[in-house]
Amino acid sequence: MANHPTARIGLIGAGFMGRCHANAFRTAGGLFDLPAAIELACLADATEETAAANARQFGFSRSTGVWRDLTSDPDIDIVAITAPNVLHEPMALDAISHGKTVYCEKPLSTSLESANRMTSAVETAGATTLVGFNFLRNPLLKCARQMIDAGELGEITAFRGRHAENYMATGEEAHSFRTDPEGGGALDDLGSHIISLARYLVGPIGEVSATLKTVYPERPASNGSSEMRAVDVDDMAHAAIRFANGASGTIEANWAATGRTMDLSFEITGTKGSIHFSQEHMNELHVWTSAGSAGRSGYLKIETGPDHEPYGSFCPAPGHHLGFNDLKVIEVAELIEAHVTGKNGFPDFAEATRVQATIDAAKTSAETRRWQAVD
Amino acid sequence: MANHPTARIGLIGAGFMGRCHANAFRTAGGLFDLPAAIELACLADATEETAAANARQFGFSRSTGVWRDLTSDPDIDIVAITAPNVLHEPMALDAISHGKTVYCEKPLSTSLESANRMTSAVETAGATTLVGFNFLRNPLLKCARQMIDAGELGEITAFRGRHAENYMATGEEAHSFRTDPEGGGALDDLGSHIISLARYLVGPIGEVSATLKTVYPERPASNGSSEMRAVDVDDMAHAAIRFANGASGTIEANWAATGRTMDLSFEITGTKGSIHFSQEHMNELHVWTSAGSAGRSGYLKIETGPDHEPYGSFCPAPGHHLGFNDLKVIEVAELIEAHVTGKNGFPDFAEATRVQATIDAAKTSAETRRWQAVD
Amino acid sequence: MANHPTARIGLIGAGFMGRCHANAFRTAGGLFDLPAAIELACLADATEETAAANARQFGFSRSTGVWRDLTSDPDIDIVAITAPNVLHEPMALDAISHGKTVYCEKPLSTSLESANRMTSAVETAGATTLVGFNFLRNPLLKCARQMIDAGELGEITAFRGRHAENYMATGEEAHSFRTDPEGGGALDDLGSHIISLARYLVGPIGEVSATLKTVYPERPASNGSSEMRAVDVDDMAHAAIRFANGASGTIEANWAATGRTMDLSFEITGTKGSIHFSQEHMNELHVWTSAGSAGRSGYLKIETGPDHEPYGSFCPAPGHHLGFNDLKVIEVAELIEAHVTGKNGFPDFAEATRVQATIDAAKTSAETRRWQAVD
Amino acid sequence: MANHPTARIGLIGAGFMGRCHANAFRTAGGLFDLPAAIELACLADATEETAAANARQFGFSRSTGVWRDLTSDPDIDIVAITAPNVLHEPMALDAISHGKTVYCEKPLSTSLESANRMTSAVETAGATTLVGFNFLRNPLLKCARQMIDAGELGEITAFRGRHAENYMATGEEAHSFRTDPEGGGALDDLGSHIISLARYLVGPIGEVSATLKTVYPERPASNGSSEMRAVDVDDMAHAAIRFANGASGTIEANWAATGRTMDLSFEITGTKGSIHFSQEHMNELHVWTSAGSAGRSGYLKIETGPDHEPYGSFCPAPGHHLGFNDLKVIEVAELIEAHVTGKNGFPDFAEATRVQATIDAAKTSAETRRWQAVD
Repeated sequence: MANHPTARIGLIGAGFMGRCHANAFRTAGGLFDLPAAIELACLADATEETAAANARQFGFSRSTGVWRDLTSDPDIDIVAITAPNVLHEPMALDAISHGKTVYCEKPLSTSLESANRMTSAVETAGATTLVGFNFLRNPLLKCARQMIDAGELGEITAFRGRHAENYMATGEEAHSFRTDPEGGGALDDLGSHIISLARYLVGPIGEVSATLKTVYPERPASNGSSEMRAVDVDDMAHAAIRFANGASGTIEANWAATGRTMDLSFEITGTKGSIHFSQEHMNELHVWTSAGSAGRSGYLKIETGPDHEPYGSFCPAPGHHLGFNDLKVIEVAELIEAHVTGKNGFPDFAEATRVQATIDAAKTSAETRRWQAVD
Repeated sequence: MANHPTARIGLIGAGFMGRCHANAFRTAGGLFDLPAAIELACLADATEETAAANARQFGFSRSTGVWRDLTSDPDIDIVAITAPNVLHEPMALDAISHGKTVYCEKPLSTSLESANRMTSAVETAGATTLVGFNFLRNPLLKCARQMIDAGELGEITAFRGRHAENYMATGEEAHSFRTDPEGGGALDDLGSHIISLARYLVGPIGEVSATLKTVYPERPASNGSSEMRAVDVDDMAHAAIRFANGASGTIEANWAATGRTMDLSFEITGTKGSIHFSQEHMNELHVWTSAGSAGRSGYLKIETGPDHEPYGSFCPAPGHHLGFNDLKVIEVAELIEAHVTGKNGFPDFAEATRVQATIDAAKTSAETRRWQAVD
Repeated sequence: MANHPTARIGLIGAGFMGRCHANAFRTAGGLFDLPAAIELACLADATEETAAANARQFGFSRSTGVWRDLTSDPDIDIVAITAPNVLHEPMALDAISHGKTVYCEKPLSTSLESANRMTSAVETAGATTLVGFNFLRNPLLKCARQMIDAGELGEITAFRGRHAENYMATGEEAHSFRTDPEGGGALDDLGSHIISLARYLVGPIGEVSATLKTVYPERPASNGSSEMRAVDVDDMAHAAIRFANGASGTIEANWAATGRTMDLSFEITGTKGSIHFSQEHMNELHVWTSAGSAGRSGYLKIETGPDHEPYGSFCPAPGHHLGFNDLKVIEVAELIEAHVTGKNGFPDFAEATRVQATIDAAKTSAETRRWQAVD
Repeated sequence: MANHPTARIGLIGAGFMGRCHANAFRTAGGLFDLPAAIELACLADATEETAAANARQFGFSRSTGVWRDLTSDPDIDIVAITAPNVLHEPMALDAISHGKTVYCEKPLSTSLESANRMTSAVETAGATTLVGFNFLRNPLLKCARQMIDAGELGEITAFRGRHAENYMATGEEAHSFRTDPEGGGALDDLGSHIISLARYLVGPIGEVSATLKTVYPERPASNGSSEMRAVDVDDMAHAAIRFANGASGTIEANWAATGRTMDLSFEITGTKGSIHFSQEHMNELHVWTSAGSAGRSGYLKIETGPDHEPYGSFCPAPGHHLGFNDLKVIEVAELIEAHVTGKNGFPDFAEATRVQATIDAAKTSAETRRWQAVD
């Protein structure tokens, strides 16, 4: 810590996620005992004007309309990337080349090839990285992971997961970066979340057989436009999967899930117990173990509390639930820890690349109509 | 009704399901205005002794240890079959040959070929049939079907279903008819339920890609035995599916679902609405439609009540929930209606054969590791 | 059992509850190993015609339009009373005078004085009685009682209960026996349920302070009538209570609970654990005990199953939920047991009279605006 | 706003609530478009040392161990008080005398007399005040209030509320400011929350009849101590209530509610609809209205989203739930608005005094054992 008294942050992007990052950077130091003080050094956005205005609101000292000024700035230690997916690679590569720790939003990039290039650069440079799969920061998922690692569920036999939302559920939602043929689609956008979660809790997915469906083959060129453009990407993906360790299951990614706003949910079955969870009730984990006695068994509803690290940093008492933005605060605290120790966070670029490889295999399987191994 | 003053029942089998049938036959007449009076004529069981004892308790007038005496009895109108699956075909064929209405427990038989033979016999004889997929009798599923038929959900795009229980969840559960290579396995036993439900609500499944998993490759030869026998059937099956109408989804059949006792559950997504349901809360249907206004939308929890036929036959007021056995009573009421009108019930043998064909396709896909069309 | 080979039932009333009783009498013998066979001997209803028609449908051998013919019939062993509350006393007294076992619907009568007379008659005659507080038959409430008796919750400190339904929730619901000044009102009709439950699980209520509210001071004289009649009874009652054992709490009885169909619910707090339950999910009991370990504590959701007697009489496997009518079947099984052994069932007339005394005290407290001890 | 470019904050207290305030002050500006920029000017704590250390972590520029230096500091605009309840009055009075806007944690003070003095001072000085009943900031409660104001529930007839937690549920929890005879007890600590909520949604409580219970008549003098001290305050309070507008109901305050961590919950019944809510699922409001059609009615589960102000300041998309700390951020945003406009926030000191008066009436009723009007 002596060499890292301060972590100077350069944030690229001031949209929904940029705002969320900024909030987390502003908040983390007051809640966590971090090994370095966070300094909001510079904000880069599409133009000088929006960068300056947002920097003022978010609390950054400087701003720029040219992101390369930020990634090459010697007075910045950590580069946080919340720009459109297609820019992740050039931004990350430039930041890595300047010796920065890189914190990148998910998905890592728009193709497996691109993700591989990014990971190679990291390995070559020895950079510290973290990818923003923020749902994994939930203290209850850490609890689930500990239970699995400790064998409390026995051997894991099945995983059933989905990430379903409704933000593209009607034909009125227009084209955007989300429907861009390069890196777009529900499987990339949401599937990456449920796949990263499956890998975190159960392990690598060995093979997959998927079907992809485009509900709306054309969408307005822009919001409210009467001009229609063809859509090439999936609105939903359904897959049967087999893990390397022999567990089997299903996953679904769906952004046309009418009625659902955040059903990132799963059930994990083991020979001795099971767990189910949905982000819709993100402060509850439902756990069944064979330890119950006759007439006294059932699912135990565990609520987040001080026993689940790092909930205690937010509140010393149970019952005061965490919200979505709090997960990003935890992520930033882990980022600072990774930056100071030089140990990659989880998931780092390499792990995010494995997620991307799984998505690629799913797409291939949908085309060949056969099971496809994940390389 | 003049020509059918009485429906004389011959029931084969006095196990769990036989008992459940007997209860329903004894109960239905007092709750429903049936077009024929039910007479508990004869009970057949494995031996004369058990048949006689159970007939006495269940309220049957006669009993027999020889089922062919029952299927050929001229004083019986309806033959109800709850014997082991492997006996469904010979019993049904004999009953059909004697002009009976046949009410058979699910699954219809132990192979698609057998099911086809049974359906051919029905068509030749013009027999009236009904198969005991009792979960379909839930008034709320009828409500769901009506909503879908009326277009309240728009075009159906996705189905996510499972039937998960835990009755074979440990390695201590012994071999039985369930694990018999002919017609055994979780996919046959439980998958048939979720497939029949998917067909009822969404329509025929066109193709499937499944993976089957045997969690316990050997089980005790009998309860408590130390002798182990190899198991050839699946303990769980996971599949991606595509319906003939273009909807896609996943299904799971799992009898090793630790912690779950009756998760026969589904979510149906349409372009205008969605429904989710679990048999764990069988008196609740959760419905989302785009009719909600800003800030006032969400899932509507519909509880079974007098507006959902035929709940009113059980109770004139809402809030008095139905139980599992009540579903069988509804099924028997539908059976009597089918018997009197001569119109097949739903699902009849032909429909149950389509369920069997879907299971067959799933098994084939697991072997070929490709998508398999359902014939 | 030698002396009671058959229990010959005489049922008075063929409305909602009469039908429910008939169903239970018809069903119980096939599910339970009863110490006496049930014979549906005679049904009495308001007229000879309705009695005859309902007897035919319900399966009774004889019928009558004169209830005294039934209560005095030497070929009847058990008289079941589902007639309007105001008739409970004369019917029960006559049945007792003829040596019958008496099974009476709740509430026992229309006033504490009347209930006291009935109980005195029972004591004098040594009659066997049971009162139809059917919700108490839930196997999970038996489980709750066992946990409390075994000290699993420690010392009981608080009870929070209500019975809320909506069947009188608008001003359009007309006058009926429910709003009769003698024995009418939400506190009598629904409060009796939650008070009997409180007494069953926690013990006698020692004192009470209640407020009663009439939401609709006048209602149509009959359904659809434009003639309005004044209403004197409560639509809802709210009370603070203290149990004899020192626990305190609140109870609510409410038949104008817009949106609620069956919220008979409670939470019991003890020094070591707590339980909450609602009849809306009658197959689930939520239990918290201090036995949980750090990070692994929470409410356990116990589902009804074979370990909860007498669920196994309905189904040998868990997950097959009970419904409302099943509770009445359990009640009838307990009735037959009480009849044969000569041991009063629970709650008997004496217990139901204590419930009535508690209601009386609540009404007195609302008038005097002071805490009122229950005599 | 021209005159208030900056709101300079002086925070007193650095415990759980001080930390929570500091976090909110640090966060609000980046999420909300506030009419004044927030400046973390000074932190006062018990000693110079803890004040300095916490100021550093929380991001305050200055610190002091003498709170009067802060309340009299001309370079401070808003004084936020999170010190022990007994200090609220002197701190607030001093701050008011120096022309500050005062933001005080609940409960306002330790007695009605004290609260009255504080409110008088506010009125004399024309000070702007806000009291930290943070649960009221939930966007869904605003939604509930709007529905009630718009008549969507009809006339309100009943309220059933409680605030139940378990932080004093065993006898091991030691004496502290919570059990101080002056201003201590569950009714003061938690009852103030549910009473403020009842007043916010339904209106003033006109009269009350309560019972108070001390579960543990003695507690350790301090954590882990073997010396025991007598306890004079209530561990739980149960009350029947009547609102000024005629609605009736029950309330409970309970800090010995074994198993409960945050059951701040209520049900509001109206002649046309009802609402139920629990802080345990703070992002869900359950609403029933008579607008449902036959077979399509039930409780609607409304999730917090952008349509519920000011959720959109945290996230532009639905499904990203708020947490406990976010409620404090909303409160701070409302504080800044109140400070700039000079319009008191809700609840201000006057409103908090009405809450205190209701608590006082409840205590009096428990002593006199009669209904007690709230002055």
